[in-house]
Amino acid sequence: MENKTGRRPGSPQTREAILDAAIEAFTQAGYAGTTIRGVARTAEVDPALVMHFFGNKDGLFDAAIRSGGLPLRELGDVLEGDVDGLGERLMRRYLSLWEHPEHGARLRAILSSAASSPAAAAMLTEFLTNEVLQPLAEQLRGGEAETRGILAGSQLIGLGFARYVLKVPPLASLDHDQLVACVAPVIQRYLTGDLPLV
Amino acid sequence: MENKTGRRPGSPQTREAILDAAIEAFTQAGYAGTTIRGVARTAEVDPALVMHFFGNKDGLFDAAIRSGGLPLRELGDVLEGDVDGLGERLMRRYLSLWEHPEHGARLRAILSSAASSPAAAAMLTEFLTNEVLQPLAEQLRGGEAETRGILAGSQLIGLGFARYVLKVPPLASLDHDQLVACVAPVIQRYLTGDLPLV
Repeated sequence: MENKTGRRPGSPQTREAILDAAIEAFTQAGYAGTTIRGVARTAEVDPALVMHFFGNKDGLFDAAIRSGGLPLRELGDVLEGDVDGLGERLMRRYLSLWEHPEHGARLRAILSSAASSPAAAAMLTEFLTNEVLQPLAEQLRGGEAETRGILAGSQLIGLGFARYVLKVPPLASLDHDQLVACVAPVIQRYLTGDLPLV
Repeated sequence: MENKTGRRPGSPQTREAILDAAIEAFTQAGYAGTTIRGVARTAEVDPALVMHFFGNKDGLFDAAIRSGGLPLRELGDVLEGDVDGLGERLMRRYLSLWEHPEHGARLRAILSSAASSPAAAAMLTEFLTNEVLQPLAEQLRGGEAETRGILAGSQLIGLGFARYVLKVPPLASLDHDQLVACVAPVIQRYLTGDLPLV
């Protein structure tokens, strides 16, 4: 049996097409507005095939976060290199992700999904822990490195939310150099500064 | 005409009952899951009456943010007093709001609604600007006070998101004193420290 796209059900290409459709749906409609049936329709496959590959909507979201299609993995690259410049490198990469036409919409979809669904929040947390905080901890090699990482992450998440989701005027109008000058020292202090952590 | 609760349509008590139902709906079901019809059903009024008072769902959300029923106004109190202790006072009040059983759920509903709806984001931004940032600017009396306020706000928003929505383990397990020691200096620097703002 072939579907009308000519892809065989069960092939890696079909899985990829379903995942693309899911990322598109999470981006456009958020977690609540995304359905297995809608994703299947966009990917031109039977809903049963979506469930075969991903189980349920949570499985789709998990795969979407993990795939190259969502941009969190991009942050991992900047961990390499001089630890003293990490705050600034993270800030600049993060700002450019939000301002990328596709990646920005996807970051928004991730935040929105995590804010509205405990299941999505748990999956994002697991991803951040395994793919961002643990590599960061290896880079920092100090005590409490994961706590340092998520404190830095909290500032980045809030900055993205205030500047790109809420678009609060005085924050939305600062340029990258001003933002880096104001916020990168905070990120850097969380990562490598003196913190009262046991 | 009286409805079955004995409230007259159009009375202030009826408006209040509709608003309570709306806050409950935004908290439980988020922005996307809230409907005029559902709010009317909970408040035991005709949907036309909800529209009479609030126009549409956006009007309901706007009224919900502004009412004492949502907790952002609570942050205003701590603006009074010694400006050098503002970072710590804001942090402690904000943490206790998130850990309050009703207020925490409402903060989550606000974030989730703003993340999923540009209209809700615009209303939250207008509220924050008029009710939090402008009073804060008067308190600080310095240049760029609103920019300082929203930089501080970005850290608070991200901290709430990471600790109470995502519940990332190392952050969720810090106690208030540890959090204040790590984060209040950041808030304080944004509000009153040396920042490279023009």
